[in-house]
Amino acid sequence: MNITIDREILIENLNIISKGLPNKSPMPILTGIKLDATDTDLFLTSSNSDISVEVDINDSSLKIESSGSTVVPGRFFIDIIRKINSKYVNLFLSDDKILVIKADRGEFKLHIMDPLDYPKIDFVALENPLELHSDVLKEIVKTTVFATSTSEKKPILTGVNFNSNNNRIIVTATDSFRLAQKVVEIGEYKDFNITIPAKSLDELSKAVDSYDGNINFYFSNNKLLAQYKNVMFQTRLLDGNYPETARLVNDSFNNVVKFNKDELIEAVERVSLLSPRDKDRKNEITYSIIKLNIKMDRTVEISTNYINIGDAREEIIPTYIEVTNPIMIGFSSRYLIEALRSFNSTEISLNLKGEIRPFIVKGEKDYNLTQLILPVRMD
Amino acid sequence: MNITIDREILIENLNIISKGLPNKSPMPILTGIKLDATDTDLFLTSSNSDISVEVDINDSSLKIESSGSTVVPGRFFIDIIRKINSKYVNLFLSDDKILVIKADRGEFKLHIMDPLDYPKIDFVALENPLELHSDVLKEIVKTTVFATSTSEKKPILTGVNFNSNNNRIIVTATDSFRLAQKVVEIGEYKDFNITIPAKSLDELSKAVDSYDGNINFYFSNNKLLAQYKNVMFQTRLLDGNYPETARLVNDSFNNVVKFNKDELIEAVERVSLLSPRDKDRKNEITYSIIKLNIKMDRTVEISTNYINIGDAREEIIPTYIEVTNPIMIGFSSRYLIEALRSFNSTEISLNLKGEIRPFIVKGEKDYNLTQLILPVRMD
Repeated sequence: MNITIDREILIENLNIISKGLPNKSPMPILTGIKLDATDTDLFLTSSNSDISVEVDINDSSLKIESSGSTVVPGRFFIDIIRKINSKYVNLFLSDDKILVIKADRGEFKLHIMDPLDYPKIDFVALENPLELHSDVLKEIVKTTVFATSTSEKKPILTGVNFNSNNNRIIVTATDSFRLAQKVVEIGEYKDFNITIPAKSLDELSKAVDSYDGNINFYFSNNKLLAQYKNVMFQTRLLDGNYPETARLVNDSFNNVVKFNKDELIEAVERVSLLSPRDKDRKNEITYSIIKLNIKMDRTVEISTNYINIGDAREEIIPTYIEVTNPIMIGFSSRYLIEALRSFNSTEISLNLKGEIRPFIVKGEKDYNLTQLILPVRMD
Repeated sequence: MNITIDREILIENLNIISKGLPNKSPMPILTGIKLDATDTDLFLTSSNSDISVEVDINDSSLKIESSGSTVVPGRFFIDIIRKINSKYVNLFLSDDKILVIKADRGEFKLHIMDPLDYPKIDFVALENPLELHSDVLKEIVKTTVFATSTSEKKPILTGVNFNSNNNRIIVTATDSFRLAQKVVEIGEYKDFNITIPAKSLDELSKAVDSYDGNINFYFSNNKLLAQYKNVMFQTRLLDGNYPETARLVNDSFNNVVKFNKDELIEAVERVSLLSPRDKDRKNEITYSIIKLNIKMDRTVEISTNYINIGDAREEIIPTYIEVTNPIMIGFSSRYLIEALRSFNSTEISLNLKGEIRPFIVKGEKDYNLTQLILPVRMD
């Protein structure tokens, strides 16, 4: 193998491939990136326990002196290509087990692995695609993934459920304390009900970050393949039945309070400063319980109490209010803030049923999006 | 106590005070900020085991309804004042042991501590100051603090030594693997030899970040007080004798190689990608050993080798070279990069004596700055 390629093109494709590259793996060969140079194309492949990615590079800058295959240490290869600053790079296999990377006055030699040891990736057949625009995918990820569970106790809840029938997909994520639901209209397509690992959706969303166009989705019973441009991005699906949640969201909520979204976020953030905090180690975000007091005089008070430190109270004027009785409800401020941030609307509404019943958040301009939060019992 | 003040003014001063506020303390009262409102001024005080800070606020926006003293939970108080967004804040002591913070429609109540329990800070007498411009202090911190030791094995090396005689201060930092020395010209002043904790210098440098003017320094035998504007910033000094280092730096180095600084940094960073790494947990910077090969054909090669992964090699053309014999020398790439970054010069020189002897880095425009690096033995 001996090829020369525009470094920027190579980096762009390595950035996509990196979504499927594990940092560690029980199979060391998977920490490598597979390079296959045919007479005309350069294929790059990565794979971890969830995700496999393959890109097919057929750029005008690509010069293939001789074809061949190899597997190179993935992170080192990516770091080197990113850090060198030449316009082109030359990659060739020298004597046994060495890939040479030449760029200007620099030369890097990497020990390679045997491409025959690299597992064959079994991509889903490219038949009968479901087309979704990249913007739709990004919106789904933004509005639902944050609500998935990070605990492996119920593995199915670490994924986002896509349930399709009647020309729409109901997309649901829940960690059993709050729930996000986004409805997406699609064309004629067969019914399906799949649960995609949240991490895979996140990585796919990052992979298409600078892509603006349709993505073709292909299903098998345990895999999903997303294909666009020169990219094949495949993820495993989660096993098991996703819980029924329609009942929760489709309940009737006869108390409605509307707010300016940003005003509400800021007030909740301020008051949360004096609520007992537990750092979520992974996200470094604080969980804290706040109290919302909807009064019959059409004002709303948000308050917290932190034993031995102090308490906080802020009044916020709703833009609209329609309640049958005063409501005092307690819940995690993080859940409310994450839910509010998923909306594009300027004005959002809290729709409540009662003090210890789940409530939902809706946005005037996000009519297909529902965020639901379970309250906690207050003393 | 009942006062009203412009929130921006209060934040600005709290940011300075925060440099002396411990996150935890064996003396819980020190996690608090002391507020003293006299008839005309508001004093804020913080103190930890190294640093004590006091600011004297006498702003035209300050309205003192009634004077008084209190100690409030420091981090909570700062977070609240930062997060609220009113123009003014009103602070008053309500009934027993509560400070109320009022801002627009928000009200925060903090449990206070007894100001009589707050230790009296013993500031150095304001006599016979040494004046240094804030720019000089910032330059000292930038060029030396990184070379101090982070290990408590030799506590004196966790500080920066200031040794003054003959109208100049020799500022030295070393972790015994590399050394930074900056010479600062001063006016007539008594001789002194003190070692300031690196952390204190860092915090003082941050405190004066937006200040452009002279700082007055006052010494006692175990404390240093920096005074500027309305700020008193005091740090303890480190006990013990700082090692003699003049001999190392004032050695003669008869081999000189000059480089464009940025070119050298980039080449070292690239080649370091293939050198064995150990993450420094604190700084997340990698230590790695690189080899510099100065050849008689007037070229210089930088190379590394990472067992089982590969090796890297880059040729770099010096802007000037004068060597009596070829030199092959190995050292930490991090030490070289940190040393290089401390220079303002475009062109820097490596001045070497031999393969296993310390070498120094100088910059054409930084004539008062010397960085020294100890090599490691190569196999």
